[in-house]
Parts: sequence; structure tokens; C-alpha cells
Amino acid sequence: MGPLACFRLKGMTSLSPTPRTSLGRKKHRAATDRATLYSVLDEALICHLGVVRDGAPLVLPTGYARDGDTLYLHGSTGAASLRAATGGVDVCVTVTLLDGIVYCRSVNNHSMNYRSAVILGRAETVTDPDAKMHALHVLTDHLSPGSWEHARGVNAKEFAAVSVLALDLAEASVKLRAEGPDDEADDVEADAAWAGVLPVRTVFGEPEPAADLSAKWTTPEHVAQRVTKEGAAAR
Amino acid sequence: MGPLACFRLKGMTSLSPTPRTSLGRKKHRAATDRATLYSVLDEALICHLGVVRDGAPLVLPTGYARDGDTLYLHGSTGAASLRAATGGVDVCVTVTLLDGIVYCRSVNNHSMNYRSAVILGRAETVTDPDAKMHALHVLTDHLSPGSWEHARGVNAKEFAAVSVLALDLAEASVKLRAEGPDDEADDVEADAAWAGVLPVRTVFGEPEPAADLSAKWTTPEHVAQRVTKEGAAAR
Repeated sequence: MGPLACFRLKGMTSLSPTPRTSLGRKKHRAATDRATLYSVLDEALICHLGVVRDGAPLVLPTGYARDGDTLYLHGSTGAASLRAATGGVDVCVTVTLLDGIVYCRSVNNHSMNYRSAVILGRAETVTDPDAKMHALHVLTDHLSPGSWEHARGVNAKEFAAVSVLALDLAEASVKLRAEGPDDEADDVEADAAWAGVLPVRTVFGEPEPAADLSAKWTTPEHVAQRVTKEGAAAR
Repeated sequence: MGPLACFRLKGMTSLSPTPRTSLGRKKHRAATDRATLYSVLDEALICHLGVVRDGAPLVLPTGYARDGDTLYLHGSTGAASLRAATGGVDVCVTVTLLDGIVYCRSVNNHSMNYRSAVILGRAETVTDPDAKMHALHVLTDHLSPGSWEHARGVNAKEFAAVSVLALDLAEASVKLRAEGPDDEADDVEADAAWAGVLPVRTVFGEPEPAADLSAKWTTPEHVAQRVTKEGAAAR
């Protein structure tokens, strides 16, 4: 069945096939182009990091950024779950963009349009200071382009208190659905229900200055230019 | 450190504390009201389901819906990962809503506003036919309200080909950040950078009718009413 058919927990075809990433179902939905993987990772803002803790899965949202074929994650050195992701243990990082709700003539064929990347591997702590500072730069550019240049830089105390993990994109897969309704022929013939796609988009609204921001400031260009037409309409 | 400070992989305070869901960090960010858990689950459209496969974590996006204190997930009976989530094994379901990018005077304090729910437990397959049909109704209402009444219903073959899992919300936690920049006093004093929040919203655009939709149809009200002002502006 599937009002959420595309999100059935199927496997996916891998960009770099291994037994773990070639689970076999709906292979036609796998994008074999590495550029698609990059575009998904570059567009989304958060990932879901899965680790095994005491034999059970734990999935938490976190920020990330891609640099070539490396994915960076970071967090406080004191975070238990970040520590659980280090030390050569297996992790899974999943990034999903929801693009639309697919309405079909039958309830069963309802679905979603989406793009999703799954990365398996073992994360390594970035210890070299130059590499770590580079990773922080990449992470900042992904979350808030322009802030690395605009805001006060990372000081020694802050630098020491953060951990950065690096995960290779070698074992990565991407899967997507980007099409209209896929109805049974009988249902199309019957013409008894509407069918189509309701697009889903993530938009940025008008920036809200900090309560204690001094009067001298207008919104800087690196922030203002992120506001989307849709977001501005929400005022 | 934290351009993505709120997404550091910290623990969270549980609504129903257990050792697994009281990881101890940033407890002030935990919402202790069960209504907050419900609102996060009811607003989001997809979850990330974590399972352990061959000792390694696997995280996949899937649709879900809440009914009281039960979370339903569903998928094809043939999906390997869905099977991996059944049979009394531990699963983790995480639902995250991203609400804003928090720009601070320092790179280090950059953060995100978000709401996130984490549910731990063991999923059970819904086998009773009435309960299973009810779950499909709940799942459909969550993804596409009105479709259960509008579209052709689930037939026997389709009903047999879908699995529905139920996960109790007993061991659930919710965590959120919903505030402005949290800068160091020295940085506020220096007044050398802008600070504020860039709101992030998920919007629905104008419905796109199926290519093979007959000319008799206009967009039905249950679809049209989901279009958000922001989404309509994207035309």
C-alpha cells in the first residue's frame, strides 16, 4: 500500500554499490549521477545522523556540510551522541528533501516526491588544526554563507570546545521521485478522482533582527539575499 | 563550537524519562509538555526511521502519522528495511522541523531554531484488519487530508501488500530552540556584526494537475485549501 509509497522503507541503488547500499527495490528511482548526490547535500540544511548506542539505533538531527567527497559534522566535545559517532564506529547520515505530495486516483498510490541521500561509513575526528579550521569554515558557509567573513571568528577556547567529524562519501546512495501521479489504468479510465502534485518548498522569510541589535544596522546583504520571494510574501 | 550549535549531538530531556532519553545536555531546551510532542509530530510530514542492520545503523525517510499515543509507519511487505524494523527490534523515529537560521555576532554562536521529536521503542506489526484499515486512514489523513474520502479506497490486493507498524509514544522526547541570537556580552558590546534570525518555512505551492487528468476537473477544495500564501507567491 502506499499513501506514502515513495517512502516505503525500500532499499536504494548506490552510487558506489556495496551490498549495504544495493538493497534491491525500485532501482529505477536511484539517480546514478554523483552530481545529484552533491546537489541534494548542498541544498539541504540538516541531516539525520544514526548511530548505535547500547545496541539500539539513535537518530538525531544535526548540521553538516559537504566539501568535495567529504561530509563534515560537528558538535560539542561534551555531547554523548557525538562521541558515540566517533572512534571508528558505523554511522549513517541521511539527508532528505521533500518536494511534493502526490495525489492519485486511488488512496493506495498516493506518494511523495522527494530526494534523499544516504551515506554509510565510519566518521573520523578531524584533529589537524588547519583541517579543522577549514571544516568549520565549510560548515559555516553551508549554514550561513557570508557569516565567516562578517562575524567574529572562532577563538582558541571555542576552537578547543568543538569536535568536527569527517565522513567519506564513498558509500553513498541517492534516491528520488520527481514525477506525477502513477495511477492504475482502471482508475484513470474511471476518472472518479483528481490527481496531481502539491509542491512542497522550503523558503526563507524576512530576517528578524536580534532584540538587542543596535540601531545602526540594516540587514546585511549576505542575509537579505537569502530571502525567497515566497518567504517575503509571508510578512 | 557551533555555527550549528543547536544541532550539536546533545542528549535531550525526555517527556517520559528513561536513561536513554535523558542524556543530560541542554535540558532547558527540552519541552516538557506532551502537547509540544504532538504538535511536532502532527505538523511534520516525514520522519527518519533508524534501525540496526548487521550491527550498523540505517536511517531512512518515511511517512508516518500519529493517533493518540501511537505512531504509525507503513510500507511494502517486500521492503527489506521495513522488515528490519519489525519483530520486536529497537527502532528510533526522529521528526525534525527547521524553523530558522540564527545569525550571531560570533561565528561560534550561530545556531538553528528547530523542533525535534525522538521516539525510541519496538514497533509492532498491525495485523488486525480493522486496526490496520484504521491506521491506513490515519496515515492518509496525515499526508493528504481529504483523500480518504475523495480517492478510490484500498482494495483487498492492495491491503494485503502493505505492512503497517505501530510504535508507542511512551519513550519519546522533544527538544527545541525558538529564540533569538545568544551572543557573548563582549560581542554585543563590540557591535561589530549583525545578529538575527532568518525564518525557515515549509510551504505548499500551486497544485500541478496530472498530465492525463481529464478536462472536467478543477482542483478540489481539500487540495486547494492547503496552498499557503507563500506557496502561491511562487507562481
